[in-house]
Amino acid sequence: MPHTIRDIAAALGAEAAGDLDLTVTGAAEPAAAGPDALALAMDPRYADGIAKGRARAAMVWPGADWQGMGLQAAIFAPRGRLAMAGLTRLMDPGPDIAPGVHAMAIVHPSAVVGAGAAIGPFVTIGAGVVLGAGARIASHVSIAEGARIGADALILQGARIGARVTIGDRFICQPGAVIGADGFSFVTPEKSGVEEIRETLGTREGIKDQSWTRIYSLGAVTIGDDVEIGANVCIDRGTIRDTTIGSGTKLDNLVHIGHNVQVGRDCLLCGQVGIAGSARIGDRVVMGGQCGVNDNIFVGNDVIAGGATKIFTNAPAGRVLLGYPAVKMETHVEMQKALRRLPRLASRVAALEKGVPFAPEAE
Amino acid sequence: MPHTIRDIAAALGAEAAGDLDLTVTGAAEPAAAGPDALALAMDPRYADGIAKGRARAAMVWPGADWQGMGLQAAIFAPRGRLAMAGLTRLMDPGPDIAPGVHAMAIVHPSAVVGAGAAIGPFVTIGAGVVLGAGARIASHVSIAEGARIGADALILQGARIGARVTIGDRFICQPGAVIGADGFSFVTPEKSGVEEIRETLGTREGIKDQSWTRIYSLGAVTIGDDVEIGANVCIDRGTIRDTTIGSGTKLDNLVHIGHNVQVGRDCLLCGQVGIAGSARIGDRVVMGGQCGVNDNIFVGNDVIAGGATKIFTNAPAGRVLLGYPAVKMETHVEMQKALRRLPRLASRVAALEKGVPFAPEAE
Amino acid sequence: MPHTIRDIAAALGAEAAGDLDLTVTGAAEPAAAGPDALALAMDPRYADGIAKGRARAAMVWPGADWQGMGLQAAIFAPRGRLAMAGLTRLMDPGPDIAPGVHAMAIVHPSAVVGAGAAIGPFVTIGAGVVLGAGARIASHVSIAEGARIGADALILQGARIGARVTIGDRFICQPGAVIGADGFSFVTPEKSGVEEIRETLGTREGIKDQSWTRIYSLGAVTIGDDVEIGANVCIDRGTIRDTTIGSGTKLDNLVHIGHNVQVGRDCLLCGQVGIAGSARIGDRVVMGGQCGVNDNIFVGNDVIAGGATKIFTNAPAGRVLLGYPAVKMETHVEMQKALRRLPRLASRVAALEKGVPFAPEAE
Repeated sequence: MPHTIRDIAAALGAEAAGDLDLTVTGAAEPAAAGPDALALAMDPRYADGIAKGRARAAMVWPGADWQGMGLQAAIFAPRGRLAMAGLTRLMDPGPDIAPGVHAMAIVHPSAVVGAGAAIGPFVTIGAGVVLGAGARIASHVSIAEGARIGADALILQGARIGARVTIGDRFICQPGAVIGADGFSFVTPEKSGVEEIRETLGTREGIKDQSWTRIYSLGAVTIGDDVEIGANVCIDRGTIRDTTIGSGTKLDNLVHIGHNVQVGRDCLLCGQVGIAGSARIGDRVVMGGQCGVNDNIFVGNDVIAGGATKIFTNAPAGRVLLGYPAVKMETHVEMQKALRRLPRLASRVAALEKGVPFAPEAE
Repeated sequence: MPHTIRDIAAALGAEAAGDLDLTVTGAAEPAAAGPDALALAMDPRYADGIAKGRARAAMVWPGADWQGMGLQAAIFAPRGRLAMAGLTRLMDPGPDIAPGVHAMAIVHPSAVVGAGAAIGPFVTIGAGVVLGAGARIASHVSIAEGARIGADALILQGARIGARVTIGDRFICQPGAVIGADGFSFVTPEKSGVEEIRETLGTREGIKDQSWTRIYSLGAVTIGDDVEIGANVCIDRGTIRDTTIGSGTKLDNLVHIGHNVQVGRDCLLCGQVGIAGSARIGDRVVMGGQCGVNDNIFVGNDVIAGGATKIFTNAPAGRVLLGYPAVKMETHVEMQKALRRLPRLASRVAALEKGVPFAPEAE
Repeated sequence: MPHTIRDIAAALGAEAAGDLDLTVTGAAEPAAAGPDALALAMDPRYADGIAKGRARAAMVWPGADWQGMGLQAAIFAPRGRLAMAGLTRLMDPGPDIAPGVHAMAIVHPSAVVGAGAAIGPFVTIGAGVVLGAGARIASHVSIAEGARIGADALILQGARIGARVTIGDRFICQPGAVIGADGFSFVTPEKSGVEEIRETLGTREGIKDQSWTRIYSLGAVTIGDDVEIGANVCIDRGTIRDTTIGSGTKLDNLVHIGHNVQVGRDCLLCGQVGIAGSARIGDRVVMGGQCGVNDNIFVGNDVIAGGATKIFTNAPAGRVLLGYPAVKMETHVEMQKALRRLPRLASRVAALEKGVPFAPEAE
């Protein structure tokens, strides 16, 4: 779909210059841009690319000499990635789901579907479901009995919304996500080895041959507004109360959220993060890919954890974490440096013991 | 559904006192309990919550002064979580799957479906499948040709049971699980870099430009009785013999089980655990979230591994493990302590070398 | 299906001896082999198994005394696993998908489906899709608008192919994989904590209460020839250009590939590997299970990373990596050894400080 430079700039609330009636049909990296693409050059290091490509218009940094780059029009983006958000929103065609309810979708008579819904083929919507206005539900999705979802939901192929799950407005769910699986909660008739080592910190007495009895999940999942859930994510139901995800929080692909977990507002949990049962995560927490959080602990507001950080104990608000087990980022960096020098340190101690000067070439 | 205190106590085999005809319709945390909920206060630290909530009945610890808490009835639970198992089982409504075979399910004429089955819409059941009595199969499930599943199976939305997979009784499968994907097994025409470094422990000679040829999986997956599989779990087929999961074993969400793996009885594998090809896991093994097990190794009976433990070598029975690479839990704790003191140790060695006393403030 | 020893040897390009007209119907481990199975004994340590089983024919190592083992026929395999590739390919029955388009599949009138396709029930194929000859598409698969897939694709149950995704020939996709989910890309109106700590390496000034704005994914995913994707894998779309997976590359179950990532040719990424956004992976890279790669970094050709290696910085070609953070394999081994001896080293330093000989028994 073609957009004029004027319309794009207006949508972004950005300044523009040159031929504002020039139209573009897409966006491209500068060197790969054809004449109908808006080149993305929000940083001076992309200026060279403009010359290599064939763009007539570009989104550039404030103060860029767009005419010197041979452009006919330019949009100025003081914060490049923020401009990208607006631009990509404008240009995204969205998924192709026909308006109305597909003939091959099964909607329970007691379900309430809001105005303007688009529901694809092979979708099931259970008894008592309430689905807000403007919902777009792609093929193969199941929404189980009693789930309630706010306005403008976009739920993509094969996602599973469990029974009695509650979700706010503007929900986005990627394909294959499972919201409301049963919690992983089991108990042995007598004390188990796991209970024992938590008390003894590792020592085990007699080992018993026991089987696991299931604790069912009577709770569901409650999700706020403006939440996005990645592909093949799993969020378990709570045991008695609901597992909760706060408004504005985004989960990347393959994230695992255990039963009873509470995640706050405006968090980012990157790919393959795992949060064990009953952990509580504050607001605006950011976790890099493959982070893990132990069960029953608390991670404070504004904590940032680097990739693959494994958090075993409570983390105070604002802490920046790294490592397994997680420590403050600067401590981790210092420990790793010292560890790399450790073989040399051992040689130095050996030299001291012998009363001879340390000779590195003898290592 | 309302339950009398008498009926609940009988179902749990527990003692009760007070007005045994009082009915409750659900369970709740003490402070959040309304008058129709059974408050859960199996530990004295929850006694305060009873006063804050409006429960008339509670499940309490043995010897609790339930009348002093203002309750009209009480059930006594000597082992709280075990009582939770019984209580939640009683109160769980279960998924809403209509009895019989849905008109939009496709069941191959040669498949045998046991008595009392409930099979949802958009389900496919392949040629020669044998499905035991009392099966509940939710929407979008596929059960491929030749699979055999025991009595009382509960298979939730969109789970995939592969061809010729064998599963015992009382199987529970969460949404999106894939049981019987092809193994990840490839070979290069000549020795690969991976084969080379396994022999040389890291050194590489000439690097060859080779492509991977697929080894197909002729085996399937065999699963015992009373097994539960989490959401979006993946279990691969064996190459020649079956991959096996022993009776009573429970897998949490997003667990990966490679080809030829043998998992014993009554194990618990928590979220995102990964077991590489041909590893053998004993009985009653418990692994915290994000643990990893190397290919072709053996993990003995009753091993317990803390969260994110990465097991590279055989682990003897009963060992408690932590760390990457995995070591005994107490060794890990000792190593981490020493590592945290390492920068200081380096300063002490430097002081010794200079022949001056160690001055911490100079660090 | 029965195969003669002659036919099997011919298919493998291997030497054979004995009764070449003898037929087998499957393959088995030597001790478990019945009279109609080809025993697999490509290494002398399996010779004993032959005697325990009832096989009449076996695949053996070159020079094996097959007659002495009581066999009637033998196939000689100089490289056992390579022979396994050919043998299993020959014997794999493949999935049961009826030829033609199932009556319960929904194929958009504008989609082009090549000759010889087998498309199962509850499949959706969107507008403008081009699907090459010989495609086998199992039940519940969705292929969204504008996707283009080459010849001889095998796409298994419930896999999700996103809009405008491009895939080469001989593609194999395991159940539940999601190719073309939206990228995980968000921006705050003002500088976020993550941006801040990347500049300050861990220090944070004022913490702002901000929400995340979505950057939409205008790019898609481009996949080469001979690629295999594991069960429940997730591959995200690019932001502007496509995320790419090179020809011959194989991804195991539950792998996560972020937006804009470029993976080269002939790579093996094992179970639960995660590659963060905009990382570039060279050719012939092999990563063990649960490896992680930081965003925006480069991993050179022929890098091999052991299980659970976490790569935070660029890795040069041919490097063998291990650890968190990743270091050269030999460095990791040396560091771990030194770490295990660290408590003892601390005692030795204490002894030096006191001017007394180190007495291990006093530790």
